[in-house]
Amino acid sequence: MNIILFDEPFESATLPAGSEEAKHIRKVLRAQVGTKVFIGFVNGLRARAVVKSLSDAGDVELEVIGTEAAPKPLPISLLIGLPRPHTAKRLLFDAASMGVRALHFFESERSEPSYAQSSLWSTNEWRERVRLGVEQSFGTYHPEVAMHSDLQSAISALFGAGINIALDNYESAGALGEVLPESATSAVIALGSERGWAPNERDVFRKNGWKLAHLGPHVLRSETAAVAAVAATAARLGLCKEQTVTEL
Amino acid sequence: MNIILFDEPFESATLPAGSEEAKHIRKVLRAQVGTKVFIGFVNGLRARAVVKSLSDAGDVELEVIGTEAAPKPLPISLLIGLPRPHTAKRLLFDAASMGVRALHFFESERSEPSYAQSSLWSTNEWRERVRLGVEQSFGTYHPEVAMHSDLQSAISALFGAGINIALDNYESAGALGEVLPESATSAVIALGSERGWAPNERDVFRKNGWKLAHLGPHVLRSETAAVAAVAATAARLGLCKEQTVTEL
Repeated sequence: MNIILFDEPFESATLPAGSEEAKHIRKVLRAQVGTKVFIGFVNGLRARAVVKSLSDAGDVELEVIGTEAAPKPLPISLLIGLPRPHTAKRLLFDAASMGVRALHFFESERSEPSYAQSSLWSTNEWRERVRLGVEQSFGTYHPEVAMHSDLQSAISALFGAGINIALDNYESAGALGEVLPESATSAVIALGSERGWAPNERDVFRKNGWKLAHLGPHVLRSETAAVAAVAATAARLGLCKEQTVTEL
Repeated sequence: MNIILFDEPFESATLPAGSEEAKHIRKVLRAQVGTKVFIGFVNGLRARAVVKSLSDAGDVELEVIGTEAAPKPLPISLLIGLPRPHTAKRLLFDAASMGVRALHFFESERSEPSYAQSSLWSTNEWRERVRLGVEQSFGTYHPEVAMHSDLQSAISALFGAGINIALDNYESAGALGEVLPESATSAVIALGSERGWAPNERDVFRKNGWKLAHLGPHVLRSETAAVAAVAATAARLGLCKEQTVTEL
């Protein structure tokens, strides 16, 4: 992890010896008194902190010495036909690390019903994957994650969130870069589960004013397609121009 | 796999029962006599073939019933500071599936020397990863893969291959989309190993006329950054406009 996230902001805090954060600072960062570390407050500021003391028991006392804005989320949301848990784990991590604003999953006609029963979703594991992705990115903002029972409910929940485009390897009005107007300021990109959209789902998209687009002639895995779609959308809309370079 | 690749073209062939291809056709595709399958010839045509016979022993006789051009490689090459083998495996697969033209690895100053000793490189495992990526993509073209001893050798080998841009989270002339001229027709994108470039490597890039660019404020894993960089480059250069839709 590139940054240690805390749920609540503080100016100084003592992390109990047994906490993951204290262990990370002692064992991975091998911090001494005076070592500076990057921390962040969930959905808030990024901060530099200094190790003020290390108790014999292993408690770590941190003091914030400076704060700065964390990278803002991209105005891009993903709508995803529920994939197999292994794929969903990667998607959650990668989308969070790219700064996607929201991830909306739904049980598509070609999803396996068992996917929704995975412990990924019934435990906190999905949250953990998102958090790890945010920590990778050096950010603090967590994407919203939502689960919908069907495509129409998901589309209704996303109404007004941006230009709506569904990726489709078989039927499309053109390449993503052609279908996505350069003037758009936000986008929602839909990806099917690994076996793609059912004809009925294409109808739902079209009835709701979505456009179908492709990513080129190469057929990508869902997780690769998601990263490629976010990057292509960000490039097309001229997002990602800012970069905060920060040093400890 | 979406397509079964063969090293040499044929019009008809009998696949021995014990071959991976025969097993895949029998067990995964559960083919019967008359079943159509997608096949491809490495760096050549894609084809539809029909199962003409299945012997009791398990041999599979295929006959080509139609051929078509496979998706062309993208005019994008990657130059990559040798990453840990786990990351390299994903990179090989993903880059091959996206249709990257070439992958040039080199031991960067911040690569671990042990990475080059991995069985990934000393056995055929790296080739297998590339092939799986190509099969995923429904393509036949295999990217060139090269290993260089240092950055200058790699840069020299890539001379003339396109606009040269090195991704850098710390020092950059701007976003990839700003640094990359829209009029370029091909590009080489360099990515550091997980700990980034050494100052000396930045000097080598600059002396050789490379520009440094960033992918935005979010810090991505190498494998995610590679996919994002290829997608953003393809979007910026207006590649990926063609899509061959094909049905069995």
